[in-house]
Amino acid sequence: MFVVSLSCDPGIGRAVAAEAGWRYCEAVRKVFPDGERYVRIPEDCSLKGERAVVVQSMYPNQDSMMVEALLAADALKGVTGLEPIAVVPYLAYARQDRVFLSGEAVSVRAVLRALHSAGYGGLVVLDVHKEDSLKHFRGTSVNVLPVNTLAKALKGVVERPLVISPDKGAARRAEALSRALGTEYRIVEKFRDRFTGEIRHRFAPMPEIRGRDVIVVDDIVSTGGTMASVVSFLREQGARKVFVAVSHGPLTKKALARLMDAGVTKIFSMATTCYRLEHPLITYLKPVGEVLQAIKEVLGTG
Amino acid sequence: MFVVSLSCDPGIGRAVAAEAGWRYCEAVRKVFPDGERYVRIPEDCSLKGERAVVVQSMYPNQDSMMVEALLAADALKGVTGLEPIAVVPYLAYARQDRVFLSGEAVSVRAVLRALHSAGYGGLVVLDVHKEDSLKHFRGTSVNVLPVNTLAKALKGVVERPLVISPDKGAARRAEALSRALGTEYRIVEKFRDRFTGEIRHRFAPMPEIRGRDVIVVDDIVSTGGTMASVVSFLREQGARKVFVAVSHGPLTKKALARLMDAGVTKIFSMATTCYRLEHPLITYLKPVGEVLQAIKEVLGTG
Repeated sequence: MFVVSLSCDPGIGRAVAAEAGWRYCEAVRKVFPDGERYVRIPEDCSLKGERAVVVQSMYPNQDSMMVEALLAADALKGVTGLEPIAVVPYLAYARQDRVFLSGEAVSVRAVLRALHSAGYGGLVVLDVHKEDSLKHFRGTSVNVLPVNTLAKALKGVVERPLVISPDKGAARRAEALSRALGTEYRIVEKFRDRFTGEIRHRFAPMPEIRGRDVIVVDDIVSTGGTMASVVSFLREQGARKVFVAVSHGPLTKKALARLMDAGVTKIFSMATTCYRLEHPLITYLKPVGEVLQAIKEVLGTG
Repeated sequence: MFVVSLSCDPGIGRAVAAEAGWRYCEAVRKVFPDGERYVRIPEDCSLKGERAVVVQSMYPNQDSMMVEALLAADALKGVTGLEPIAVVPYLAYARQDRVFLSGEAVSVRAVLRALHSAGYGGLVVLDVHKEDSLKHFRGTSVNVLPVNTLAKALKGVVERPLVISPDKGAARRAEALSRALGTEYRIVEKFRDRFTGEIRHRFAPMPEIRGRDVIVVDDIVSTGGTMASVVSFLREQGARKVFVAVSHGPLTKKALARLMDAGVTKIFSMATTCYRLEHPLITYLKPVGEVLQAIKEVLGTG
């Protein structure tokens, strides 16, 4: 086994290779003056008959990172004679996972089909928007919920923790994290105020929050609107500290500003993208153990 | 049948639809704030059981135009239940058509596989770098040499024409164009001057050029270096006018300046890309008839 990083590996490839004792290298990449990309696997890295793991995230420059991944699969099949495994920490186009309006593309299906047809036999993604989307990948796929890495970072930081899911859809993440932390989780309900029209939040029934540390867990913070509103609500309910734990993001300065205004204590995010907002309030984590475990599952040895 | 234009259709889709009497529409496209693209086929355009022709070129923004084409195939399969046909006037990544250095991707193979796996059952390209590359597309494919459109534009403009191929590799184009013009063609040989080290040109044997109009035909002018050198040589040999006829380009101002310095009379190029250098010396042509014929060949009705 060997691990190959492409242009958007947020440091996961090298770390996984070190943990597993696999060889690690970066693919040679360039962009021609006309904008076309080029990928070559260094000769001293690859061996015929040895399987490759390719690490490539897809934010920013989603389309180019996607095409680069297709080129890498072609190159690796040629060199090793085997189908490589793709590790995609952030899978682009995952939110367009169904036809919302007649005539739309199911974009995530198009992306997953292209990855498989390019030669990837296996796929590891980090907390994909809807796990069900992975059915469009015709090889073996594993969705990583980086719960252990999160729990390890939170332990010793939080006191009397309560895990919060900002909606029912994210409950699975909250449940898993609460188990890893040995505590319980609760779902915050969203409703529209009848008089003001504002989106507000409530618990049913209300848990004891006063003086506790709460951790709001979700897959992504993009604009930060909903998350900031949940953080405010939890502060109003008397939470001592409010942590935000996400798999992807925050992606914009505006999102961070909103969370700070709402009174967030600290943000934990996985290092899944190549653009990262650096700020003392944000800690980026690499879910090395979980990714390695998922690769082994894809290989059928996990 | 209906024709759908994506973001990079250089006016070919509408013209082909008009010529064929097919319905024409533009796909709804947008780019989300995070950079992801979106494609939707308008409801009043598409019908279940009716086959679509998608027109999308791939320069500039090769990768995004590629991904957009993948999304459109997904959308159209969903709406029509049939595999659409792709018309790609300029196929990106066509020059990386083999492994030049061990470990390289055969990029054009990756691109053609992705197009097919996305759902395109047929493919029409314009003067692809190497026709042999099309074997990587698993559906039916046709490479269009836009000879009739060129001949039509040249007739009445040229006197006593002689068609020139700037190297042996391009001879097929020159041969086809000379036949369409009812004249002969010759190949210019390239050699390195033993004393100066310069690249120079010669004919073997020398044809009568003095006072004739010559047409140098090639697939693409990118930097313009070789083409300018051939134009100079033909001027030195006494050509009355020197026309350059290419399928793609010229792509840069520098290339145009070089050709002008060398004494080019006029440049004919197909309208295959979405960036076009506008200049009185350049005439862009749409090979409508040839593309329509190729679509019919792909459909098995040509």
